[in-house]
Amino acid sequence: MLPFLQQEHGNPSSQHRHGRAARAAIERARAQVASLIGARPGEIVFTGSGTEANNLALKGIAATMSPGISPGALAVAAIEHSSVLGAARSLERAGWRLAQVQPDTQGRVTAALLDAALLPATRLVSVIGANNETGVIQDMPALSAVAARCGALFHCDAVQAAGRIPLDFAASGVHLMSLSAHKLGGPKGVGALAVHRSVDIESLLHGGGQESGRRSGTENVAGIVGFGRAAELVARGIETRARHLRALRERLETQLREIPGVEIFGAQAERLPNTSCFAVDGVDGGTLVLKLDEAGFAVSSGSACGSASPEPSHVLLAMGVTRERAYGALRVSFGMENDVAAVDAFAACLRVQIGQLRQSLGGFATGV
Amino acid sequence: MLPFLQQEHGNPSSQHRHGRAARAAIERARAQVASLIGARPGEIVFTGSGTEANNLALKGIAATMSPGISPGALAVAAIEHSSVLGAARSLERAGWRLAQVQPDTQGRVTAALLDAALLPATRLVSVIGANNETGVIQDMPALSAVAARCGALFHCDAVQAAGRIPLDFAASGVHLMSLSAHKLGGPKGVGALAVHRSVDIESLLHGGGQESGRRSGTENVAGIVGFGRAAELVARGIETRARHLRALRERLETQLREIPGVEIFGAQAERLPNTSCFAVDGVDGGTLVLKLDEAGFAVSSGSACGSASPEPSHVLLAMGVTRERAYGALRVSFGMENDVAAVDAFAACLRVQIGQLRQSLGGFATGV
Repeated sequence: MLPFLQQEHGNPSSQHRHGRAARAAIERARAQVASLIGARPGEIVFTGSGTEANNLALKGIAATMSPGISPGALAVAAIEHSSVLGAARSLERAGWRLAQVQPDTQGRVTAALLDAALLPATRLVSVIGANNETGVIQDMPALSAVAARCGALFHCDAVQAAGRIPLDFAASGVHLMSLSAHKLGGPKGVGALAVHRSVDIESLLHGGGQESGRRSGTENVAGIVGFGRAAELVARGIETRARHLRALRERLETQLREIPGVEIFGAQAERLPNTSCFAVDGVDGGTLVLKLDEAGFAVSSGSACGSASPEPSHVLLAMGVTRERAYGALRVSFGMENDVAAVDAFAACLRVQIGQLRQSLGGFATGV
Repeated sequence: MLPFLQQEHGNPSSQHRHGRAARAAIERARAQVASLIGARPGEIVFTGSGTEANNLALKGIAATMSPGISPGALAVAAIEHSSVLGAARSLERAGWRLAQVQPDTQGRVTAALLDAALLPATRLVSVIGANNETGVIQDMPALSAVAARCGALFHCDAVQAAGRIPLDFAASGVHLMSLSAHKLGGPKGVGALAVHRSVDIESLLHGGGQESGRRSGTENVAGIVGFGRAAELVARGIETRARHLRALRERLETQLREIPGVEIFGAQAERLPNTSCFAVDGVDGGTLVLKLDEAGFAVSSGSACGSASPEPSHVLLAMGVTRERAYGALRVSFGMENDVAAVDAFAACLRVQIGQLRQSLGGFATGV
């Protein structure tokens, strides 16, 4: 990224050599990102975030359909990221009928559950590829086939899934797929929406007509270059990383199961290898995050994107978790820099903190 | 920016120390950007580009008014950047009445011209602070006063003006002001919309509720930090830079006036100090850009944002320039790294290239 922050300041739309150098760098990154998910370069639309990609997917498709007069229906999973739910609700305010598909208790949106939520008027279905809080993975080919049977387009928010499990845009039956660079080790402030070549989409941002008219605005050249390189690097060794991360997670969860009043969410479902989401009865997740932070461990209560919210996780509530238990939720994400010793140190620290918090609350004082 | 690209990867919404460090950096940048334009920090909404800021201004205000039932009217200058015109046209498709205010032949949108274009139903007026092609500066206090008389909100696209001329958001009567980091020497991929504290705006991007609910999406932390620092640096010595740049431009334009068939646009208007826009009769601007690029000079034919378009500049056409002459338009922007010798070398090169192009076309073969 550095050359495009330090010396090479060309605007990719400029015709002179500096502009052409920036343009070439963007097209290289486009091919790298496309390659990660098995899409064609021309199907990649760069955006400013995964949130923008999700908004573009829903609102951009809606805008191409029955403008203003008789909006159709759309169906989204109840466990979608807030950017999909927020975009869906904005369409609902504009007259679309919105169905929220409930998952099972393990966080799985099954083909049968989706099928039951679809109407003849359903034009668009959106299901998160792997959930950002629980890591639970959905069966995209099965779900896209259900959507196809009622003639709906299918959007997959693959922000968490990309780079962690293999994806095949062309073969999955998915029409639109959202990505975010910083979830792959790239920079914040860049995302992408893959738009199948058969699909027309209306721009959210109007102007100079960049990204083949699908997203106007001077491109974040350095960010896009970083996204491309991150996509290239992360595509190598997905399985090797998955084995390492899964082993760390299993090690943590084995220790978690020894703590009374701990529930691991989605434990029976297929999950991303790096994510463990669990609740500790009688303990507030936000307080635990701060205690663990003081001890040098950076974890999250639910989604970072919603950490400012005092509400418990909508994802856990949709899985049938009680509000009380959902307030105690913690999300731990493992990285390649973590090892067995770190996991054991974290588990020991967690055990101590839980014990202290429970003692101070006067409950659960024994057994940990 | 580097710490936030290399080591400090916290999500500003996270509660742990890495998250809090990112949050603090963003708030510092918000104060720096606010200070540049005389706004309050809480009035600054960071976006992914100036284009997004312009789209947010128009669509975000429109969305707060008479949702879907009886849209009002809006008035924008005919010389707006394509992102304002594009957003305005999308509102027109949604039922808004759109008036385009024509400038005078010098590119000035006068108070009288704006006043004549307003209707009792006009809810929003948008005028570009300084034009991106000609550099012509508008009288914001006079124009915002006209809008206020009919009760309309006033948006100013200050992407080109910021850092080049002093701006005072609080005193100018402007309700919404768009900025772009890379026009200040900051990174591409970051912009901001200043939203007066008295004004409600609907988000374009729904989701996690970042930017006080006005723009969702994980923040481009490094980009925002760079924007803040650029705003701080550019605020120092605006007048000193203006003197240097204006002297270079005057030197170029004195030499341009000696070439037959050259017209300098907006020459009688107040202009940004760094911009010269002119047309060369009988020569295609795009061809001239490529010839000058070969000789080491990076200039533009019209707006870089619209360079892909085969259409002549809508800005020049609105000023009454003929299509034929508008095709010959060149825009030269000066930077602090330029000096008198560079200007003279450029003028000499331009003279040679114009002579050769005219000779090859069989016209204007003499006199240059």
